[in-house]
Amino acid sequence: MARGAVLLGTGGGGDPYIGELFVRAKIEAGRMPTIIDPDELPDDAFVVAIAGIGAPTVIIEHLVSEVTLLRVLARAEALYGRPIDAIVSAEIGGANSMFPLALSAISGIPVVDADGIGRAVPHLEMTCFSIDGIAATPAILMDDSGNSVVIEAASDKMAEELCRVVTGAMGAVAFGSFYPMSGGQLKRCGVLRTLTQTRDIGRSIRLARTAGRDVFADLIEVLERRDGRPARVLFDGRIVDVMRETRDGWHWGRVTLHELTDAGQVFTVDIQNEFIAARRNDETVAIVPDLIAILDRETGEPLTGEMLAYGQRVKVIGYAADAKLRQPESLNVLGPLAFGLDEPFIAIEDRA
Amino acid sequence: MARGAVLLGTGGGGDPYIGELFVRAKIEAGRMPTIIDPDELPDDAFVVAIAGIGAPTVIIEHLVSEVTLLRVLARAEALYGRPIDAIVSAEIGGANSMFPLALSAISGIPVVDADGIGRAVPHLEMTCFSIDGIAATPAILMDDSGNSVVIEAASDKMAEELCRVVTGAMGAVAFGSFYPMSGGQLKRCGVLRTLTQTRDIGRSIRLARTAGRDVFADLIEVLERRDGRPARVLFDGRIVDVMRETRDGWHWGRVTLHELTDAGQVFTVDIQNEFIAARRNDETVAIVPDLIAILDRETGEPLTGEMLAYGQRVKVIGYAADAKLRQPESLNVLGPLAFGLDEPFIAIEDRA
Repeated sequence: MARGAVLLGTGGGGDPYIGELFVRAKIEAGRMPTIIDPDELPDDAFVVAIAGIGAPTVIIEHLVSEVTLLRVLARAEALYGRPIDAIVSAEIGGANSMFPLALSAISGIPVVDADGIGRAVPHLEMTCFSIDGIAATPAILMDDSGNSVVIEAASDKMAEELCRVVTGAMGAVAFGSFYPMSGGQLKRCGVLRTLTQTRDIGRSIRLARTAGRDVFADLIEVLERRDGRPARVLFDGRIVDVMRETRDGWHWGRVTLHELTDAGQVFTVDIQNEFIAARRNDETVAIVPDLIAILDRETGEPLTGEMLAYGQRVKVIGYAADAKLRQPESLNVLGPLAFGLDEPFIAIEDRA
Repeated sequence: MARGAVLLGTGGGGDPYIGELFVRAKIEAGRMPTIIDPDELPDDAFVVAIAGIGAPTVIIEHLVSEVTLLRVLARAEALYGRPIDAIVSAEIGGANSMFPLALSAISGIPVVDADGIGRAVPHLEMTCFSIDGIAATPAILMDDSGNSVVIEAASDKMAEELCRVVTGAMGAVAFGSFYPMSGGQLKRCGVLRTLTQTRDIGRSIRLARTAGRDVFADLIEVLERRDGRPARVLFDGRIVDVMRETRDGWHWGRVTLHELTDAGQVFTVDIQNEFIAARRNDETVAIVPDLIAILDRETGEPLTGEMLAYGQRVKVIGYAADAKLRQPESLNVLGPLAFGLDEPFIAIEDRA
């Protein structure tokens, strides 16, 4: 699941390594996270989204604290004034898919097989929850030093801004509870069954690798199986440049690739926490909200933005976003313009 | 009181003009703020400090919202889980002395004749409340746009940092409730009867002005009457330069003065929200936490940092800080070093 989450995280959402270790240790100790299908969730259940916020470069080095996760849960129940029946990932992404599983393992509260966006996004207000009118706040943000902040914002854009500055003051990473909602709301507004999708992706990579099959052929098939959303390998080559900086709690950058055999082909991927645009010889071939993933070309291992390094041989995959993300009201908040890219959204399957 | 608060605010704490208009309008409408002496406050009363946070340059242009003040009060009572028996100023300063009076006028809750420091300071953790171990949080910060943030910090230094970034995200000014405490704590840790001191200062200036007496002679007498704390005119001259910038929500600057008749005498006052150091020909003559005030030399009107302008004829007054502020544990957090000034605290009366 961690491996699949890195692919759907499109470079963002944090490295799952620490979270994966944490969940694995709990499972080995007999404490399994519980995942329930959306159909098992009563409409009147009380659900909150659990997420880590911060610069992915920092999240990598930050241990998940069991104490903090349990404190977030306790404080959330006190704030909302009722027990939490289930938790959900705000987004799919390496670390952010692991935190709810970790919390489930230690608390027994089930995780719903769904999330708020079916990928990772750099802003709260870009989730389908926000787009469909479920408020991100009241929210709680906590750090490992005993600081806690409750936010009630007039808009999710303001919630994002407040979370961002508070996270900065907390040392660039914080954990929190967001989007208090009913089971009915989650089923109507979330992107459903994305946790099992991460499992299927991860399993496909592992099995193809073990059997010595072409990882990418299997992977494209598994991705396209979901609602027939097209996926394709956009580029096969070598990283010749990685430009990266962490600024204002954000991860900005651009990766440049050449083909292994033909240096004339230049491929770039822009990063704004996530991979947001892929271009071949300056011509856009995939753009947000469609998903862009970069994987090791030999092992098929999905890579986060922080893992990319000069000389790596990789394949870049483009994958059509969930239909919800391509609706006009969604494109208004998470289309190319929302990322400062001055070009329209064109679906990956409608490009040359 | 507004006039006296600007003097004790040592250049910071905001312009009282808007707050004064607000309180005056309430008084004319028959709604008087209630001020009680600390002796009238039961030890088990529940008290909170009310303050505006933000860059003084912004506070000037920002109208006090009655709705926001009442919302702060209601949310504070909900957060603390009990009715608020009395409110107090976190610091004395133009705007920050007016907010509690305004809230008292509209809510009927009395203001205690005291504050947290007897002057204005740029950081929460610099108040005597913090120094004496009363935590600044749980605190609430709200703006006029319906955003609210509850902070519980592991230290008052962290509380300050969180308040600062949240205030920045809220548009550089926010109102809040801090330092939930008992009446007994306030009486033990606060600087007492500073509101009546602002009244006495203001009255002295007005009466001397009306009677055509020397405002400064009367003023020094009124200031020294309080516990015998020495006050003196440090400089009499003309502003020849004002350097000022608002950066990271802070007001930084330096004012340079010459004597009216002798340009050889150069006097400077450093600003860090408040006036923090006064020097004659590079020799320090007053330094935090002792108070430095700049007043119009003809009318005796106390001036905030933002009111200072080239060509103004002013007198600079130095005034010994309350004894509490000069204790070693206080100097650790609000002495010169805390402001990045590399010199020891020397009391104004111990200088040449």
